[in-house]
Amino acid sequence: MKFSPLVDDLIKALQCLPGVGPRSAQRMAFQLLERDRQGGSALGQAMTQAMSEVGHCRSCRTFTEQELCQICANPKRAESGQLCVVESPADLLAIESAGQYGGRYFVLMGHLSPLDGIGPDDIGLDTLDGMMADGQWQEVILATNPTVEGDATAQYIAEMARDRGIEISRIAHGVPVGGELEYVDGTTLALSFSGRRKI
Amino acid sequence: MKFSPLVDDLIKALQCLPGVGPRSAQRMAFQLLERDRQGGSALGQAMTQAMSEVGHCRSCRTFTEQELCQICANPKRAESGQLCVVESPADLLAIESAGQYGGRYFVLMGHLSPLDGIGPDDIGLDTLDGMMADGQWQEVILATNPTVEGDATAQYIAEMARDRGIEISRIAHGVPVGGELEYVDGTTLALSFSGRRKI
Repeated sequence: MKFSPLVDDLIKALQCLPGVGPRSAQRMAFQLLERDRQGGSALGQAMTQAMSEVGHCRSCRTFTEQELCQICANPKRAESGQLCVVESPADLLAIESAGQYGGRYFVLMGHLSPLDGIGPDDIGLDTLDGMMADGQWQEVILATNPTVEGDATAQYIAEMARDRGIEISRIAHGVPVGGELEYVDGTTLALSFSGRRKI
Repeated sequence: MKFSPLVDDLIKALQCLPGVGPRSAQRMAFQLLERDRQGGSALGQAMTQAMSEVGHCRSCRTFTEQELCQICANPKRAESGQLCVVESPADLLAIESAGQYGGRYFVLMGHLSPLDGIGPDDIGLDTLDGMMADGQWQEVILATNPTVEGDATAQYIAEMARDRGIEISRIAHGVPVGGELEYVDGTTLALSFSGRRKI
């Protein structure tokens, strides 16, 4: 025996969340039903609305319910002529939180992965090529993840930018600030040596 | 800077779930927006519906959107004349999963806790007293948690049942099956000794 149909539905639906199994889902459902109906209703409404209305920015492809996201709609962000390519909206947010970069973004929403059938058009590289053709950009900064797929994607985009005569750079990889050399993996250490700068 | 309003709302709303902080909420929102819009929509709908429609069973107080839950609506469950008192619907489900007990339940939805201002009427003991008065029950089985509050609640209900002349019992506490004596805490061991049975 289980609970009543609506409670069962809720417990089952909660399991679509990453990292939530049957037990956590049950705990979540009971917690909301017992102690936070208001929060639960707000979540239901926010979820329904976001799933149906949030789309992608026409220019940078990040999540937004408007045609252009806040960054693309801000003319100041295009002044520097810098375009930073990231894999996901979470990466974009991480860079924005650092507060250092003032240019625009292009969000791939993934990376090249031929084995999974994800080719250049699936991650919007045709759109990116169109953007690079309009002569507005002086520099493309590649901030894809330092993984095999991320590196391959960066390589592919670098070729595209080179064909358009746009300056291209990749963010530095090395020992993170606060990290201890002793615990840094070999590949990162090798990258930090090959990327050393004169002081 | 943050995301667009709808995405921000979703990330904020997800944090009402137990154990979900800002980072997990962001990960959940992106996962659903990127890969499982259908699951997200189903969750939104199930959540909204459950929060507004799920109430309590008129008889045993567990969660249900009907007037009587499946167990209370089943006349066979009343035949044994046994009424098991538990603290929460999750406890009820745990006992049902064990498949041993065939009687009815009464769900307190909490326990006596004078310090938090939770008195007998807040956990439905007036309703329970009314049920015990109708002469239908031969035995009340107390399955509240073995905590200070759970024990106090059990004690209180035992007094009520004694006044009504109903047989009263408490589930056994002791070494769990599969547990090793070496790792069982002292209180549990003491309980398992005081509750020993002749074989």
